[in-house]
Amino acid sequence: MVRLSPPGHGRLEFARTLEVDVGGGEFNVAYGVARLGLRTGFVSRLPDNAVAAIILNHARAAGMDVSAVKLTPPDGVGRRDRVGLNFTEVGMGLRPSVTLYDRGHTAMSLAQPEDFDFEQIFSAGCRWLHTGGVMAAISAQAPAIVERAIDAAKAVGARVSFDLNYRASLWTPAQARAVVTRLMPKIDVLFGNEDAFDKMLGIAVPGARPTAKDFNWEENRNLALAVVERFPHLRAIASSLRAVPNGSVNHLSGLLWYKGEFSTAREYRDLQILDRVGGGDAFGAGIVYGLLNDLSGPDTVELAAAYGALVHTARGDTSQATLREVMHIVEGGSAVIQR
Amino acid sequence: MVRLSPPGHGRLEFARTLEVDVGGGEFNVAYGVARLGLRTGFVSRLPDNAVAAIILNHARAAGMDVSAVKLTPPDGVGRRDRVGLNFTEVGMGLRPSVTLYDRGHTAMSLAQPEDFDFEQIFSAGCRWLHTGGVMAAISAQAPAIVERAIDAAKAVGARVSFDLNYRASLWTPAQARAVVTRLMPKIDVLFGNEDAFDKMLGIAVPGARPTAKDFNWEENRNLALAVVERFPHLRAIASSLRAVPNGSVNHLSGLLWYKGEFSTAREYRDLQILDRVGGGDAFGAGIVYGLLNDLSGPDTVELAAAYGALVHTARGDTSQATLREVMHIVEGGSAVIQR
Amino acid sequence: MVRLSPPGHGRLEFARTLEVDVGGGEFNVAYGVARLGLRTGFVSRLPDNAVAAIILNHARAAGMDVSAVKLTPPDGVGRRDRVGLNFTEVGMGLRPSVTLYDRGHTAMSLAQPEDFDFEQIFSAGCRWLHTGGVMAAISAQAPAIVERAIDAAKAVGARVSFDLNYRASLWTPAQARAVVTRLMPKIDVLFGNEDAFDKMLGIAVPGARPTAKDFNWEENRNLALAVVERFPHLRAIASSLRAVPNGSVNHLSGLLWYKGEFSTAREYRDLQILDRVGGGDAFGAGIVYGLLNDLSGPDTVELAAAYGALVHTARGDTSQATLREVMHIVEGGSAVIQR
Amino acid sequence: MVRLSPPGHGRLEFARTLEVDVGGGEFNVAYGVARLGLRTGFVSRLPDNAVAAIILNHARAAGMDVSAVKLTPPDGVGRRDRVGLNFTEVGMGLRPSVTLYDRGHTAMSLAQPEDFDFEQIFSAGCRWLHTGGVMAAISAQAPAIVERAIDAAKAVGARVSFDLNYRASLWTPAQARAVVTRLMPKIDVLFGNEDAFDKMLGIAVPGARPTAKDFNWEENRNLALAVVERFPHLRAIASSLRAVPNGSVNHLSGLLWYKGEFSTAREYRDLQILDRVGGGDAFGAGIVYGLLNDLSGPDTVELAAAYGALVHTARGDTSQATLREVMHIVEGGSAVIQR
Amino acid sequence: MVRLSPPGHGRLEFARTLEVDVGGGEFNVAYGVARLGLRTGFVSRLPDNAVAAIILNHARAAGMDVSAVKLTPPDGVGRRDRVGLNFTEVGMGLRPSVTLYDRGHTAMSLAQPEDFDFEQIFSAGCRWLHTGGVMAAISAQAPAIVERAIDAAKAVGARVSFDLNYRASLWTPAQARAVVTRLMPKIDVLFGNEDAFDKMLGIAVPGARPTAKDFNWEENRNLALAVVERFPHLRAIASSLRAVPNGSVNHLSGLLWYKGEFSTAREYRDLQILDRVGGGDAFGAGIVYGLLNDLSGPDTVELAAAYGALVHTARGDTSQATLREVMHIVEGGSAVIQR
Amino acid sequence: MVRLSPPGHGRLEFARTLEVDVGGGEFNVAYGVARLGLRTGFVSRLPDNAVAAIILNHARAAGMDVSAVKLTPPDGVGRRDRVGLNFTEVGMGLRPSVTLYDRGHTAMSLAQPEDFDFEQIFSAGCRWLHTGGVMAAISAQAPAIVERAIDAAKAVGARVSFDLNYRASLWTPAQARAVVTRLMPKIDVLFGNEDAFDKMLGIAVPGARPTAKDFNWEENRNLALAVVERFPHLRAIASSLRAVPNGSVNHLSGLLWYKGEFSTAREYRDLQILDRVGGGDAFGAGIVYGLLNDLSGPDTVELAAAYGALVHTARGDTSQATLREVMHIVEGGSAVIQR
Repeated sequence: MVRLSPPGHGRLEFARTLEVDVGGGEFNVAYGVARLGLRTGFVSRLPDNAVAAIILNHARAAGMDVSAVKLTPPDGVGRRDRVGLNFTEVGMGLRPSVTLYDRGHTAMSLAQPEDFDFEQIFSAGCRWLHTGGVMAAISAQAPAIVERAIDAAKAVGARVSFDLNYRASLWTPAQARAVVTRLMPKIDVLFGNEDAFDKMLGIAVPGARPTAKDFNWEENRNLALAVVERFPHLRAIASSLRAVPNGSVNHLSGLLWYKGEFSTAREYRDLQILDRVGGGDAFGAGIVYGLLNDLSGPDTVELAAAYGALVHTARGDTSQATLREVMHIVEGGSAVIQR
Repeated sequence: MVRLSPPGHGRLEFARTLEVDVGGGEFNVAYGVARLGLRTGFVSRLPDNAVAAIILNHARAAGMDVSAVKLTPPDGVGRRDRVGLNFTEVGMGLRPSVTLYDRGHTAMSLAQPEDFDFEQIFSAGCRWLHTGGVMAAISAQAPAIVERAIDAAKAVGARVSFDLNYRASLWTPAQARAVVTRLMPKIDVLFGNEDAFDKMLGIAVPGARPTAKDFNWEENRNLALAVVERFPHLRAIASSLRAVPNGSVNHLSGLLWYKGEFSTAREYRDLQILDRVGGGDAFGAGIVYGLLNDLSGPDTVELAAAYGALVHTARGDTSQATLREVMHIVEGGSAVIQR
Repeated sequence: MVRLSPPGHGRLEFARTLEVDVGGGEFNVAYGVARLGLRTGFVSRLPDNAVAAIILNHARAAGMDVSAVKLTPPDGVGRRDRVGLNFTEVGMGLRPSVTLYDRGHTAMSLAQPEDFDFEQIFSAGCRWLHTGGVMAAISAQAPAIVERAIDAAKAVGARVSFDLNYRASLWTPAQARAVVTRLMPKIDVLFGNEDAFDKMLGIAVPGARPTAKDFNWEENRNLALAVVERFPHLRAIASSLRAVPNGSVNHLSGLLWYKGEFSTAREYRDLQILDRVGGGDAFGAGIVYGLLNDLSGPDTVELAAAYGALVHTARGDTSQATLREVMHIVEGGSAVIQR
Repeated sequence: MVRLSPPGHGRLEFARTLEVDVGGGEFNVAYGVARLGLRTGFVSRLPDNAVAAIILNHARAAGMDVSAVKLTPPDGVGRRDRVGLNFTEVGMGLRPSVTLYDRGHTAMSLAQPEDFDFEQIFSAGCRWLHTGGVMAAISAQAPAIVERAIDAAKAVGARVSFDLNYRASLWTPAQARAVVTRLMPKIDVLFGNEDAFDKMLGIAVPGARPTAKDFNWEENRNLALAVVERFPHLRAIASSLRAVPNGSVNHLSGLLWYKGEFSTAREYRDLQILDRVGGGDAFGAGIVYGLLNDLSGPDTVELAAAYGALVHTARGDTSQATLREVMHIVEGGSAVIQR
Repeated sequence: MVRLSPPGHGRLEFARTLEVDVGGGEFNVAYGVARLGLRTGFVSRLPDNAVAAIILNHARAAGMDVSAVKLTPPDGVGRRDRVGLNFTEVGMGLRPSVTLYDRGHTAMSLAQPEDFDFEQIFSAGCRWLHTGGVMAAISAQAPAIVERAIDAAKAVGARVSFDLNYRASLWTPAQARAVVTRLMPKIDVLFGNEDAFDKMLGIAVPGARPTAKDFNWEENRNLALAVVERFPHLRAIASSLRAVPNGSVNHLSGLLWYKGEFSTAREYRDLQILDRVGGGDAFGAGIVYGLLNDLSGPDTVELAAAYGALVHTARGDTSQATLREVMHIVEGGSAVIQR
Repeated sequence: MVRLSPPGHGRLEFARTLEVDVGGGEFNVAYGVARLGLRTGFVSRLPDNAVAAIILNHARAAGMDVSAVKLTPPDGVGRRDRVGLNFTEVGMGLRPSVTLYDRGHTAMSLAQPEDFDFEQIFSAGCRWLHTGGVMAAISAQAPAIVERAIDAAKAVGARVSFDLNYRASLWTPAQARAVVTRLMPKIDVLFGNEDAFDKMLGIAVPGARPTAKDFNWEENRNLALAVVERFPHLRAIASSLRAVPNGSVNHLSGLLWYKGEFSTAREYRDLQILDRVGGGDAFGAGIVYGLLNDLSGPDTVELAAAYGALVHTARGDTSQATLREVMHIVEGGSAVIQR
């Protein structure tokens, strides 16, 4: 998606200029992994116009491979094969950030399973596929596309991660559960939070939802445990945790169940926020990076939480951090000026 | 529509910020009339969100009445009742301006005739209704909405103007002709150019199209005459004329058939352009203003052409000129600095 | 007034661009009420030039009626009938916000009582008049204009609110008291704080002034009580309360005496501030809105305090919030991102 | 004066930001001379606030001496001792540039002759005083201040130049003539154009005014000759010439009568304009520079015309050119990129 | 190089912000070819810091392969292995564009021939190497690096183009001739203009230099012929031609000697310029593209001239045009707005 | 140095515009003193180009005398006599500010002692010379230049302050100690912190380094005492103290040993930061100002700490505060809006 945001903390209604960013749940994870230095690509369907070119250029600039993106002839009216948009206000203090989605009728939502030759796409030594609940919800045929992609990835031995990412505007819990139930056996690594576990898996633990004041570690552990019990084939479950005292300052942390053990990241308390969008995706990218590099559970979740926290200090959905900077945070590096 | 444009002559593909403007053919005419000092309003259907509020605020700031705009609950995904958008590059020199429309599935395109109580809308002493070919083409039911509006307007004695404004991306000539043929008997004042007369009325005169180099006055007169002959009930026919040596410098003029006589505006040769979009609509607004104020044909077309020319000197689709400034141009006022 | 501010927290002395906003005590209250959905208008006197048009457009965009604004011919030198200006720096942390007023010789300060036909202005079903101490102080004849407006408003049954808003640069306490004493019997709802009660009414309670650290609830209640005792005809007294630990973080609350009872709003502690100007006016707008809609005292003051707090999260003097957003805060809604 | 301008060719009414520049007729000449490398200073009266600091910093940055500027305590309301402002739109094509002055009640307009110790000011080896008709017109006592300055300058042997610069908004021809008649015997070098010679000296030559199309060399020469005949004590008379085909393209040249001979600069035809304000003042600065450096008449007027032309290629009232760049134009240097 | 430019036509001395672009002669050609759709890469040496990342991201966004760029550890002082910079003012009208180079001590200028494994770099099916006189001049060892690259390219059958691009600030004609004489036998396609042929090859034809007024076709043909006669092994010689009436309007064309015949592009007269830098490089990219795609001489030079002309309508050194847009110009497409 | 910074908290790698500021340790101190109202100048060596003019204009605008700056002919390549640059990111929250220096090969680093006529420079009644460790480290001959300047300053009775300012990128501790040991006997007032005392003087006290959490007052006092014991000729030792909980909020204070007594400034806890660069230099400027005005130790260190703290609330390296504003903070003035 192309994201359009008023500069600073401006209000959309009164904006005279909008900043252009690029983002989207699954996209952000791939981008975040690319920033850490691994080769990544993304698969989508976009019209062949200048708005879509913004997305392609953004991905390529980070080194992502976009050769599997299927370009469609532009529709001069925007009735079909649109580029997905969102209008995002970056809130502050008392005022929350707001995202208005305008992603109906996109080229990707009109894609058919046969639009992509996943066997060919995954044939070049791919080690990981990341997808999730937003992708699976964007159209009636989206679950089939996701499933085909997963099958092709697994056929070449890649691991599959899936971010539940429940969006009430896209589907009902019942619809979501039907799709996720079918896909779950093929998923290796699951990302989700209390809301998604509840709505999409029907698994809830009282008190697991973080309040504005604090995290509920015990309940979150129990929740992840309940998920593992239901889906014992999962290699890992990861949750980013966030408490929201206000729009400018959040507490962040993360939790990873991996190889039979829980690891929890340090708490980033009173984290000052420039733009909170994309923080969860960067956490996810950190998990993927850690597991792909055979880091331990504790090292992986610390790296992921540091990455997620760091992404809150820059505008836009996608990571502007480097691996060196992430490790500086992981290692407890201070905010003293670097010269 | 909300228009999103790279600053200056920037390219959309490389834009990091977009300027926010508001425009749309019929909207621009009403706005242009309001800027000249008459009371105007507009009728549309918009979702109740911050993007639509940009349009409402913009209209209200010029003094337009927006109370007849029907607000619909926002759709959190943008699958229906979207706000129409366009992405517009302001070209220069060799490079043309470009508009990418993203106006499918808008709230207005999903409107039904019964959404509007036109009898009530036009009951407050309305003297003029302006509509046109873009509105009539945006949906299958749009012609019926237009016709209802026209009928209600005529019932209170208002005059009706219609800008043919042919857009190949919206309908075929055959579709357009079917609609226009049905509406034509109810239209009092027709706006159009060679292309629209040809495609939508099937009336063509060889050589009427202005070249990059110059106008073809004789042929344009003959073309308007042919339209009058076919539709003798018309009170007036108006055409803005444009020749395009390059994207930064155009020649402009206009032609009006009114009360049985042709009037032609002076030629604005080598007119330097900041943003050409909305020039034709300002011309139309000038015609409406002149006829509503019972100006003569020559005075009306000069005012309209001056208005159209002046709108080329400011960014955005809608007029930023005042009546005083238009009259300065009409009276041959110079570009010497005013202190 | 047109407000000119360096972007962000920039210093005026070093500014290369200035942001243009519109504001002014009484104007902001009317604007704030309009944003909540009520019909409002404002009465003023402005020159007929492009700078004044900024103000008119801004008011109209929010739906305000500006037909009672009297336009005067522009003075090419700016010796009389100027547009009032202010230069406002938005401070941060240790550094306070600063406003340099440049509002001498404005068209409104040169207005005479006979410039306005208040009987006609208030004849259209007006239910409320808001005015205050800044308006009353801008010229020798201003008190007479205010009194005429109040008389005309009361003649049609409208309620009258008055914001004391003491400005030492405009008049002395003695001058202010003379005017306020005369107007007070006609006022229904009084807005003020400790400083204004002291300087303009001569009523003080030790310790009522909030320190940087905290509010003094008891003393503020006693202060309002003292005002009520002196002016028992008042229907309501409202005070917004502010403590200023630093320029970026304030504590806010509010107090309302209404129908014989005190109501106090919750405390917004450590409220992060983007721009503090206009917060008190939004509080006032909330009071007017509450009383016009027959809300209870507690509901009114909570709405007013929430409105005032929310206005601190956006740039400019005038509200960019909606009623829905205010109610989200009133209802304790969190700052979690809204999608 | 502080000048506030919408960016680019934006309209003031619709501006959301204004660019801050500094200018003013006499100031610009002094600044222009400083840019060419001579020591200059300026004398004025300004309030001690941040807006005035913009002016002082701007002058100092170019190396001007501001120690003779008298600072007054700031007036918190702006009723007196204001900083002069103007709102300037930079026109284009058909649309003229517009300047709205807001310079009433400035600190300088309220100055009294005794505010300045001109004997001390001019005691440090001053070789030239430049002043003019705008300064002389800003208040009733301004002519006396100007005369005192002239007397003090002449007492130390400095030459005196005076730019007639007629402004109809500041005084009537009759008022202007009374003042100029009194000052003229003390003036050494006179700057003016047809309009000023006519209104302020009562000397006119039919056809001397340049049309949009072209200059009238013969008539301009005759006009200058008529001035010389009337005021034979003048050492030099200089006129910058401008024809205005449109707001983006002007023709420029200049004329100098010096040591009994006429010199004319080359014609800069179809000069493309970024911002025309300050061009005449840079021409004046070039004349002052040439005469102070004992250049010949032809060399002086070529340098002055080149300087004036070059200043049209940058924003703002004051010169951004260097002597090297002026000489590049004087010597016929091309616009080929310089690396 | 990273290019830093004041926005619009601003002056460097007075800039408060600088726009960031990326460019450099040889880089721009490769980038321009990538924009037309071919796979390209570039070879360089850069420090591993955020400024160099700007260049890498810019290249990758256009699809260029940067894997052969050698990264060096950043030097915290900037004494060695700097990133090359230039400060570029975009002139207008009378005022030329200016580039101040700050490219001493760059990582690339400190590179040694053994830093690059050209055999490996060119082993992947490379069909073309483009290099030139700027690269060859940046250090004492640069000619050896260029020669190694050429040898490796020719070893895999790639063609070699060389843009003479004489820069007096980098070397003397004698130094340049020594290097070029040695390289010339290995060059297939030569780019150059009158100045470069004269200084670097010692071949001159009187009158070949275009004046501000016009091209000298005959002399340019003779000049190219003289070069061919001296170096008969050349497959092609291409010259972009430019005449500079002023900084905002140039005339452009181009000339190609190929397969024994001269082809000349149409003349783009009075081409309006947003930013002239990079135009010659886009012309070169068009030549490379045409020859790689086996276009005829006339088709190649028309495509190249159109590409070069189009690049003048956007900011920055590198192409923002697409092949479709170039072909629109080649085919004589107009500047009428495209919707 | 010219500092180039992404707007707001933007990342350098992704910046499309850079803000232009001017700064440098010793320069900032002189600038800071000039802002407080004293006459200052600076001595340097710069190329005669537009980038250096940015520095000169910036200094002059604050009233600094730049006549002792030696201008060298610009080098068209940037191999020598460059202008020093730095690229500075303003961090926030978790993310530190970052400065990439690009100051090799500057005109000043290539200066020779004989380039400056220090006797003449200091002959005009100079009362103070400030220099420091950055200047002394920029080249092999820099210490000799510094020593010559100190000798000339002392010859006219000026006091000499020296800011140790250790930069590991410029020299080793051993190199630094050799230079400082030689200069120390001539230094009157020493600025430094724990790191500099350790690396450059070899004096360390365990625990003197402030942690992110808090200051270590006792240890800092002991450290200064140890310095005094070693160098008993020093008139004063001053240290600004900083603890860095995160990049947006620091604690600040300062310590002064003067006339045999320690004075400590109040603690500015949880100071909100817009841009932390230049805070230490403003502290130094405050010390110089206090000592030159014969303030007491406690008054001097409070003024210095307030100045340093205030500079954190504005962008850029150099002070934008006034003496009046500093005294407002010293006197405990609040952050309530000032009108």
